[in-house]
Amino acid sequence: MIIIMERNATKVQIQRVIDFLKDNDFQVRHNTGEVHTVIDALGDKTTITPGRLAAFEGVKEVKIIREPFRLASRDRKPEDTVIEFKNGVKIGGGNKPVAIVGPCSVEADYEGLLEIATAAKEMGCEFLRGGAFKPRTSPYDFQGYGEKALQFLKRASEATGLLVVSEVMDASDLPMMLDYVDVLQVGARNVQNFKLLHAVGKCNKPVILKRGLASTIREFLLAAEHIMYQGNMQVILCERGIRSFDSAFTRNVMDIASIPVIKKYSHLPVIVDPSHGTGQRYLIEPMAKAGLVVGADGVMIEIHNDPENALSDGKQSLPLPMFREVMGRINKFNELIKEDRQHQAANTI
Amino acid sequence: MIIIMERNATKVQIQRVIDFLKDNDFQVRHNTGEVHTVIDALGDKTTITPGRLAAFEGVKEVKIIREPFRLASRDRKPEDTVIEFKNGVKIGGGNKPVAIVGPCSVEADYEGLLEIATAAKEMGCEFLRGGAFKPRTSPYDFQGYGEKALQFLKRASEATGLLVVSEVMDASDLPMMLDYVDVLQVGARNVQNFKLLHAVGKCNKPVILKRGLASTIREFLLAAEHIMYQGNMQVILCERGIRSFDSAFTRNVMDIASIPVIKKYSHLPVIVDPSHGTGQRYLIEPMAKAGLVVGADGVMIEIHNDPENALSDGKQSLPLPMFREVMGRINKFNELIKEDRQHQAANTI
Amino acid sequence: MIIIMERNATKVQIQRVIDFLKDNDFQVRHNTGEVHTVIDALGDKTTITPGRLAAFEGVKEVKIIREPFRLASRDRKPEDTVIEFKNGVKIGGGNKPVAIVGPCSVEADYEGLLEIATAAKEMGCEFLRGGAFKPRTSPYDFQGYGEKALQFLKRASEATGLLVVSEVMDASDLPMMLDYVDVLQVGARNVQNFKLLHAVGKCNKPVILKRGLASTIREFLLAAEHIMYQGNMQVILCERGIRSFDSAFTRNVMDIASIPVIKKYSHLPVIVDPSHGTGQRYLIEPMAKAGLVVGADGVMIEIHNDPENALSDGKQSLPLPMFREVMGRINKFNELIKEDRQHQAANTI
Amino acid sequence: MIIIMERNATKVQIQRVIDFLKDNDFQVRHNTGEVHTVIDALGDKTTITPGRLAAFEGVKEVKIIREPFRLASRDRKPEDTVIEFKNGVKIGGGNKPVAIVGPCSVEADYEGLLEIATAAKEMGCEFLRGGAFKPRTSPYDFQGYGEKALQFLKRASEATGLLVVSEVMDASDLPMMLDYVDVLQVGARNVQNFKLLHAVGKCNKPVILKRGLASTIREFLLAAEHIMYQGNMQVILCERGIRSFDSAFTRNVMDIASIPVIKKYSHLPVIVDPSHGTGQRYLIEPMAKAGLVVGADGVMIEIHNDPENALSDGKQSLPLPMFREVMGRINKFNELIKEDRQHQAANTI
Repeated sequence: MIIIMERNATKVQIQRVIDFLKDNDFQVRHNTGEVHTVIDALGDKTTITPGRLAAFEGVKEVKIIREPFRLASRDRKPEDTVIEFKNGVKIGGGNKPVAIVGPCSVEADYEGLLEIATAAKEMGCEFLRGGAFKPRTSPYDFQGYGEKALQFLKRASEATGLLVVSEVMDASDLPMMLDYVDVLQVGARNVQNFKLLHAVGKCNKPVILKRGLASTIREFLLAAEHIMYQGNMQVILCERGIRSFDSAFTRNVMDIASIPVIKKYSHLPVIVDPSHGTGQRYLIEPMAKAGLVVGADGVMIEIHNDPENALSDGKQSLPLPMFREVMGRINKFNELIKEDRQHQAANTI
Repeated sequence: MIIIMERNATKVQIQRVIDFLKDNDFQVRHNTGEVHTVIDALGDKTTITPGRLAAFEGVKEVKIIREPFRLASRDRKPEDTVIEFKNGVKIGGGNKPVAIVGPCSVEADYEGLLEIATAAKEMGCEFLRGGAFKPRTSPYDFQGYGEKALQFLKRASEATGLLVVSEVMDASDLPMMLDYVDVLQVGARNVQNFKLLHAVGKCNKPVILKRGLASTIREFLLAAEHIMYQGNMQVILCERGIRSFDSAFTRNVMDIASIPVIKKYSHLPVIVDPSHGTGQRYLIEPMAKAGLVVGADGVMIEIHNDPENALSDGKQSLPLPMFREVMGRINKFNELIKEDRQHQAANTI
Repeated sequence: MIIIMERNATKVQIQRVIDFLKDNDFQVRHNTGEVHTVIDALGDKTTITPGRLAAFEGVKEVKIIREPFRLASRDRKPEDTVIEFKNGVKIGGGNKPVAIVGPCSVEADYEGLLEIATAAKEMGCEFLRGGAFKPRTSPYDFQGYGEKALQFLKRASEATGLLVVSEVMDASDLPMMLDYVDVLQVGARNVQNFKLLHAVGKCNKPVILKRGLASTIREFLLAAEHIMYQGNMQVILCERGIRSFDSAFTRNVMDIASIPVIKKYSHLPVIVDPSHGTGQRYLIEPMAKAGLVVGADGVMIEIHNDPENALSDGKQSLPLPMFREVMGRINKFNELIKEDRQHQAANTI
Repeated sequence: MIIIMERNATKVQIQRVIDFLKDNDFQVRHNTGEVHTVIDALGDKTTITPGRLAAFEGVKEVKIIREPFRLASRDRKPEDTVIEFKNGVKIGGGNKPVAIVGPCSVEADYEGLLEIATAAKEMGCEFLRGGAFKPRTSPYDFQGYGEKALQFLKRASEATGLLVVSEVMDASDLPMMLDYVDVLQVGARNVQNFKLLHAVGKCNKPVILKRGLASTIREFLLAAEHIMYQGNMQVILCERGIRSFDSAFTRNVMDIASIPVIKKYSHLPVIVDPSHGTGQRYLIEPMAKAGLVVGADGVMIEIHNDPENALSDGKQSLPLPMFREVMGRINKFNELIKEDRQHQAANTI
């Protein structure tokens, strides 16, 4: 930690900070310049957090040098985390990028879902996604079919061999959900719902954690840390766009650079969700490719058998014929850029 | 609703939208210009949401004219909501602005808390706030003392007559919390934790709902709507700063204009939290006054008997001697600007 | 400066940074922790900028401790800058807040302008503002009447005794403009048009510098520094809203806290422009008051004799009858909060 | 245009808007709902701008349907603009992506510049860029060598056959600059410096226009429109990152999706600048590829023969050996994704 004192900090104030640090077994050096005194402190930040020190009289700023996430950090675990599923599918570690596709919400029509899942399987996708509990900005919007939706997902999964991904919105739903899903998803709005992070942290299931609309990369990795700190190391991060000043043409701004940044600082797999990231069908293919080329371990795409009658997000869902074309090109693209991805992986680590 | 069709939308696409709307009992008119066709539709948006229409082929954009919140809207309820407590304290409706003060987290030291509460009472404050469950960005930070903290708050409340405000982080904690607190707080990070909003919506307790770091004003009012839709009409909104590109001098940017905006569009009371809004002691007084002058119904301020040993947010907490001075000036200021507030209230409605 | 080395920086890389700093007469100390080496350097940053050091192999980050603005800094000049005009009007230093009012653009109708100026004078305002050259996002919008507009402003100024403020958009217009205006304005879009900053920096006229839509406070003060570095110390800063993710109800988000922040770090006067800051008539009065209460040295408000026929910004301009009421209340308010402003001034310095 | 009236707009107010529109030869229809009246108006927006109408009493909002840029719009000119240079190099229209490389600023050392240019030529780049006039946030930073720098660029260009790109900061420098450069660059800070846009709009030279840190895509295209409106149709847009709330790991957030968005709405070529977009060497290659895969017509990359001694932006400049590797892989990548780019181009139009 570096503690920068106010320009008018007194000698007594400076000494109190130094004494406090020494009493807590920190190694301390300081340097008094023309304007500011700077104190360098080496020690255990689990006992003394930067916030504690910031509250001392005369302290201007406390700067952390080491990133505050630990379990998620590549410093502690240099090799990529690879998450492996019962059927041999793997996410991360330079394995073939996965594709997670499906409707925004699972609806009353099982045949429609099966049609979606069949198309997904045909196109080589590994995961079927679908919402059972929908976080909706307005209480007047469709809120999901709950457990019935999960039953449909499981049936479609059994019929096709796809793995199931669905969002958990409340810890109390977890025991029930674990029977149905292969991957739990934590949504963007819950990225700092710490109770939920702790609850999924105690499950033995991989978790897709979506970046919040206003999460910094550091906060995003700390949210993963909350899950990992409870024992669950199978966290997959998902870039899905952040809020910006311009939402005239895209719902959010996709922070494509966050993928290689995260890869550099963390060993966790990262996937990319261009459906929510852009909210526009015509941008799904290019933005999926952009994510893959910078190192994403997979893509998540909303598709629907009948978008005009979808109860949510129909606008951004690919109709099945368009999905088949797009996915075909993405599959070919993945073959094409294999070498670029490998180089990218080697380079960011 | 206004539906704007793509410039190359076909006649068939236009007709399908019109037919669908008519089938759902909307009144429809349309206007075909040189470039775009525009469809005006009047009807019940609880059955047909804008998102549904946006998914139709050939639709460029769907624009809602009426604000999507209803129970929270001043259109439906022109008079201010006033929340009254057992001891006669009132929030909203032009009543004297309240003051909600206390430590970020309640700590192990009851005597300290009592000292804080006593100072608060002396200075004419109405509410004691304190965290029992702390949402912390890092899992390595102090997470709160839980029920023990609530017991301390209740004791201090009984000793001083102050009402108790504390944050709920999980629906499962609610039954226990209701015994201790007079007002439930929902934190900024949970503003779109819909399960939690629904749970507090079923309680018969006033709720302080904090604006999320990336909440638009519309989303903020829709979050209140989620609570109200469950039956709880006692919602107090709290402006506490939003995320911006500049965090060098203040933690967040306080959107002071949001207060008169919300007052114009909603009947709910609004308070202002300059402690979290700025993260800087020296800004608490001016920003509290700025909030009050534009119509805030109260202020929330973090104070501490020993900020250097606070387990969280010590940096932004006012030490008690400073608090007494600041609160004294805020009280005088409230007297001074009575007429301005009344004019402001009359004007924004 | 503090130089933080990468975790895998080699000894040779560390030594090269240290040697380079010593060769340039910096005093250097360093501290090698478990993960990072930190180098403290005291010396003259006009010769060696942080950017230079950041480019050295193995350097992770360079942190500046002292703020990079100097002439604008309160460290160098603790007392408030006060700008005094020929007629005795003063801006800054705790003097009565000024009012700068007028139409967005000066239009073809001199009688209209005179009507505006007369109302302004009656209400105790000190300055008449009006655009002669209009920066317009679209080339199809009205671009201003140029010198003719300045002639009108001067005539209205001679008729009423008001001082004239008008925006300069190009250095080549300066010689002509100096004959007509008492204060030059540099608009938000030109806050980093360094050629223009240098040109006004060479004039002997006060300059109102508007904060850019995406200017950090530090960049804003550095823009002022560019002007001052050329010799012109009469800079008045103007907060007029920054870009945020929410523009549904207000054009921009006014960063009211920036006013006391700037007052703490700089001696320059600061004014507030709620017309551009909010873009809504009903928010002008409350936001002007919010700015004044936190220490602003004046307000800038757009008014118009016939807003429905204004060629620009009619929507946000106050019609004259509304202006008289609003200005009357602002004048009374300034009387009321005198003590608060004085306290605020004493406190932020 | 769609004019949405306030919920309490009077019949007289509504009629005045309708009459005004009819008087100006607009075709008008209106629709009065339960809450709002909506007026549809078809006509010439060059005479009556939306801002004019917004100022009418009782108007809540004016919505434009057709994008406000015209010359830049694909509606008016469906085929891609291709800019061709004397030596046969072409930008846009599906031609091979170009590479524009060079130092941030041209420095005193011509040999260094020649070394850079030679490497660039060897690696198949088409353009040499270098700053002669540097826009610098602080007046204490290096401001560029002016005309001498341009002379060096021209000499290096003659030696290698590369075309020259350099930034113009002031209209008065243009006549001199035209002798030296093949492409004028307008920097991000000048994207709404309308005087400069008008000046380059009168030149017969291609212009690279950089997106501002806070420019929406619409504003960016309107800035291009300002240039085109003066007669110069050879505008190349450059995405170089926008300001976001997270600058801990990257200087800006690159809005990669803006490239296919612009391609859909405009016929102008777009390039991508990952050096300024990220500020990090390790992100240049992946983000260049991300830009290319979504359809960028070229990349702009800062390189330097001796980054540790660069007078600006050394941190983000690629040293020559790294540049050779990166450029080699980008060249191969361009070959690889030819088909994807063609598909992308066909798809966004």
